[in-house]
Amino acid sequence: MTFRATVLTLYPEMFSGPLDISLAGRAREAGTWSLETVQIRDFATDKHRSVDDTPAGGGAGMVMRADVLARALDHSAPPGDPRPRLLMSPRGRPLTQARVRELAAGPGAVILCGRFEGIDQRLIDARGLEEISIGDYILSGGEPAAMVLLDAVVRLLPGVMGNVVSGEEESFESGLLEHPHYTRPKEFEGREIPEVLTSGNHAKIAAWRHEQAERLTAERRPDLWQAYRPRGGGKA
Amino acid sequence: MTFRATVLTLYPEMFSGPLDISLAGRAREAGTWSLETVQIRDFATDKHRSVDDTPAGGGAGMVMRADVLARALDHSAPPGDPRPRLLMSPRGRPLTQARVRELAAGPGAVILCGRFEGIDQRLIDARGLEEISIGDYILSGGEPAAMVLLDAVVRLLPGVMGNVVSGEEESFESGLLEHPHYTRPKEFEGREIPEVLTSGNHAKIAAWRHEQAERLTAERRPDLWQAYRPRGGGKA
Repeated sequence: MTFRATVLTLYPEMFSGPLDISLAGRAREAGTWSLETVQIRDFATDKHRSVDDTPAGGGAGMVMRADVLARALDHSAPPGDPRPRLLMSPRGRPLTQARVRELAAGPGAVILCGRFEGIDQRLIDARGLEEISIGDYILSGGEPAAMVLLDAVVRLLPGVMGNVVSGEEESFESGLLEHPHYTRPKEFEGREIPEVLTSGNHAKIAAWRHEQAERLTAERRPDLWQAYRPRGGGKA
Repeated sequence: MTFRATVLTLYPEMFSGPLDISLAGRAREAGTWSLETVQIRDFATDKHRSVDDTPAGGGAGMVMRADVLARALDHSAPPGDPRPRLLMSPRGRPLTQARVRELAAGPGAVILCGRFEGIDQRLIDARGLEEISIGDYILSGGEPAAMVLLDAVVRLLPGVMGNVVSGEEESFESGLLEHPHYTRPKEFEGREIPEVLTSGNHAKIAAWRHEQAERLTAERRPDLWQAYRPRGGGKA
């Protein structure tokens, strides 16, 4: 089954680079997923092909029109299309690996990329859009966020990464940041690989990695650390 | 002054789409910022041009070598280069709009994109890399994260967006999600623009928007809401 992604955007040409290459590109060639980009401007009806207008109530910037977006959306995903309709927006719920996993298990996604100040709320309400934020910073538009979401989803599709995924996922989903990594050469600028890692003692290695993951999480992510501790910090 | 971005990656061709177009593209043409991509593989020394090796201590996947990355980094940003050296990594500190603003005020950034299981910790230590995460999900590599970071930074560079930025920034930095937006047409599928927004009463409009921002934040982001309330929720 092919995961079908449709992206509605004012900049379809932005999607040429990142998703054509490497894992995502090979998986597209193999038919594991497909990507269709839809130019929102094609659904404008006036002679200037306008997609936006000034905000009701005043204020800076422009707002994307509900009627134009509705036409673009209904054309790309008519009623009955089972795919979730997503809107990339800093007002959305934060993207999590759990949501990425759910999306990857589904038929695809229709992703609307906002620009300017935002989009008319009535479109969000009328079409039941799921607003998703990739983080607490402001982008020039939803396009980079859509690329991030698709990259995260595509790597989980069957056959894209194989076994490599599993270990890493578990590590992330344990609620801890990942432990540090080392590889050859044995010495780099006078710095050695930690002795335990070359000891061949698998239990000790696992314990060391777990300690390191706990230390890093406590140092860098008090939010994750607090959520993790009651679940049994200290197990190694 | 030009903001100089250098990205170290195994996939320089990924950066052709998103940053060539729209705001970021026009600002590059205008010389507001520059983007150099460096192919890490050019700094491998063996005949297979390897950049990675198996993890010390065992485990899935491959780890990028400290020595190869050090050569690539030192070539691109020799000692004395004042730009921060960043590593896009899910283990990093979460990217915030405050950090984006600091970066935009500086001379540029050298951004290392990890792939595979990660990179050798000794390189991070020896070169003092700042690890930055754009969110709690796993990408195929650091490239989409680097694009997000650059997009967020570039839109803040002088002259790129002009006045449009200010309102939106303030709204985000108030610690609340943004209020809903509306624009013409007055009626969309039987849905009207909320009456207050067409009342012309600016104080009432501001109060309504603030209430909506509070409501959305409380509903969707208990984390932000908790941090916001002691700072004086209720002021409109």
